[in-house]
Amino acid sequence: MIKGLDAQAAIIYKPVQEELLAVEQKLLSLAQTSIPHLKPLLDHALAGGGKRIRSALTLLSSKFYPRINEAPITMASAVELLHLATLIHDDTIDDTDTRRGQETIKNRWGEHIAVLLGDYVFAASATFVCDTQNVRVIRRFAETIMELAAGEIVEYFSCYQAEKARELYQDRIYRKTASLFCTASETGAILGNAPEQQVDHLKTYGYNVGIAFQVVDDLLDVEGNAVLLGKPVGNDLQHGVLTLPSIMLLERYPDANPINDFFADQTRIDKLEQAIDMIKNSDIIPDCYAVIRDHCEKASRSLESLPAGQAKDSLILLSDYIWERTN
Amino acid sequence: MIKGLDAQAAIIYKPVQEELLAVEQKLLSLAQTSIPHLKPLLDHALAGGGKRIRSALTLLSSKFYPRINEAPITMASAVELLHLATLIHDDTIDDTDTRRGQETIKNRWGEHIAVLLGDYVFAASATFVCDTQNVRVIRRFAETIMELAAGEIVEYFSCYQAEKARELYQDRIYRKTASLFCTASETGAILGNAPEQQVDHLKTYGYNVGIAFQVVDDLLDVEGNAVLLGKPVGNDLQHGVLTLPSIMLLERYPDANPINDFFADQTRIDKLEQAIDMIKNSDIIPDCYAVIRDHCEKASRSLESLPAGQAKDSLILLSDYIWERTN
Repeated sequence: MIKGLDAQAAIIYKPVQEELLAVEQKLLSLAQTSIPHLKPLLDHALAGGGKRIRSALTLLSSKFYPRINEAPITMASAVELLHLATLIHDDTIDDTDTRRGQETIKNRWGEHIAVLLGDYVFAASATFVCDTQNVRVIRRFAETIMELAAGEIVEYFSCYQAEKARELYQDRIYRKTASLFCTASETGAILGNAPEQQVDHLKTYGYNVGIAFQVVDDLLDVEGNAVLLGKPVGNDLQHGVLTLPSIMLLERYPDANPINDFFADQTRIDKLEQAIDMIKNSDIIPDCYAVIRDHCEKASRSLESLPAGQAKDSLILLSDYIWERTN
Repeated sequence: MIKGLDAQAAIIYKPVQEELLAVEQKLLSLAQTSIPHLKPLLDHALAGGGKRIRSALTLLSSKFYPRINEAPITMASAVELLHLATLIHDDTIDDTDTRRGQETIKNRWGEHIAVLLGDYVFAASATFVCDTQNVRVIRRFAETIMELAAGEIVEYFSCYQAEKARELYQDRIYRKTASLFCTASETGAILGNAPEQQVDHLKTYGYNVGIAFQVVDDLLDVEGNAVLLGKPVGNDLQHGVLTLPSIMLLERYPDANPINDFFADQTRIDKLEQAIDMIKNSDIIPDCYAVIRDHCEKASRSLESLPAGQAKDSLILLSDYIWERTN
C-alpha cells in the first residue's frame, strides 16, 4: 500500500495498483547511489510520500489499449520525480519550512544544497524518461519543465499587480500546474499505444483536471483549515499572488477594493483580512466551485469516445476526487 | 565573429567557424519567447558570451567523418546552454555579483528568479538535445546534469575537510567539470558518425582536457591576477574548498600546516595568506603544471588513431590552449 493514501484514492487507483507499487520501488531506487553525501538527502526527499495523483494519471491513461512494455511505469516514475524536483525548488524560493509533514530540504540542509538537489532530481527524472526510448515523450517532458519554470517566473512578476489579472490567470495556472497533469496523461496515452485522437482526448482530460486542481488549491487557500494546510489562510494574497477568488473580488468591486488597498500598503493586514471575509461572504465561493465543476465535467466528457472499462471508470472518479478535496 | 574570442581561439575554431556561428544563432533564438517577463532575463543571460570551448569541442569531435545532418550543431548549442544553466545556479548559491563582465542574474533579479531561470535554461538545453533524435545522446546528457549537480553537492560537503582530500579530489573534479567536457566530445563523436572505438578515444580526450581545465582553474585561484579573475586570490581555500595546490601543501606538511589552522579558526586570514605564500614559494606550482601537462598529453595521445586533418590539428591545439590560460 502506498503511504498516506486515503480510501477513496485506493479505490480509484485499483486498476493500476501493482504499477503504482512498481513506481514506488523505482523512486526508492534513486537513493541507491554510491555517492555518500547524496544518499541521506535523497532518502529524506523521497520519504515525504505524496498522493501520487500525477503518476496514477499516467498509468490510468496508459491502460486503454494492450500494454506493450514497462514504459508507462517508467514514465509515471519520471512524472512523480519531476513533481518532487519542483517542490524542492519551490520550497527553497518560497522559504517553506515543512512539507508533507516533514522538514523541507531547504530547512534541513540550506538553500545551497536544496538548489543542487533539485537540479539532481530534475535530471534524474529526465534519465527515467529516456528509458522509455520515445523521443516524442522525452521532448514533451523537457518542454514541461520549461513551462513549469516559466509559470513560476510569470507568477513572481505578476505579484501585487491587479491589472490584466484575469487575462493572465488561465495561462499562468496552465503553466505552473496543468502542464504537468497534461503531460502525465498525454505521455501515458502515447506509451499505452493509444491512437492519436485518443491521445488528444486524454491530454484534454489532463488539462482540465489540472486546471480544476489548481482552482481547488486557490479555494483551499481562502477557506481551508490553516492547520491542515500548514500555512495561514490568505497566504497567496498576502504574498501578492492573485488567485481566482481574489480576481473575482477585484472584478466585482473595481473602484474601491481592500485588495488594492493592501497591495498599496502591505502593512495593512486588516485590508487583507477584509478581502478574505468579503470573498467568504459573497457568491464568489460558489462561483469558483462552478468553475471547478465545469472543468471536471469537461474532463469526464473528453473521455466519451474512449473504450469502456476500469481505467475509464477510475479517471471519471479521479476528476470527482479532485473536486472533493474542497469538502 | 564570436564575441570575446581571442586570436588563438579563432585559429583553433577555424574548421568549425560556420557551425559556431550557427550555435550563436541557436542560442539567441532561445530569447525569442512569447512570454513577456522571460525575454529580458534570457537576453541578459545570453549577452555574457563566453569562450565556447565546450561547444567547439562537440563540433570538432563531430568533424572526423562525413556529416549526416545538423545534429552536431544542435548538440553543441545544448552543451553551451547547459553550461550557462549551471553558471546561473552556481552564481546564485555562491552569491556571485558579476560574471563575464556583467551583473549576475542573482544580483539583478534576486535568488528566486535565478533558481527558476536556471531551471528553465536546463530544460531548454534538454529540448535542444531532443532535436538530435538520438536517445543515447539524450540520456548521456541527462546523466551529465546529475553528475554536475552531484559534483557540487560533494564539494559543498567536503568543505573544510582535510581528510581523504586527495582521494576524493579526482572524482569531484570529474563530476563538477570534466563530465561536461567528456559528454561534449563523446556526443559530438556519436552524432558525427564516428565508429565506437573512436567515440571512446574522443571521450578520453574530453575527459583529460576537462581535468586539465579544472586544475588550471585551481592554479589561477592561487597565482592569478585578482582583477582579471574578478575574485580574490585564494578564494577557493577561503571558502574551504581544497584544490590540487592546497592538497599538495597538506601532503607536504601533514603535521603542522597553516591550512589546518585556518580550517580550525576561519578568522585567521593570516594563516590563509601564509598557506598561499607557501604554495607560491614551493615546487607545488611546477608540480601542478606537470599534472596539467600530463593530462593534455594524454588528451593528444588519445587522438592518435583518428584520421588526420583540420579537426585533429585543432583538438591538439585546443589542449595546448587550455594549458596556456595559466601563462
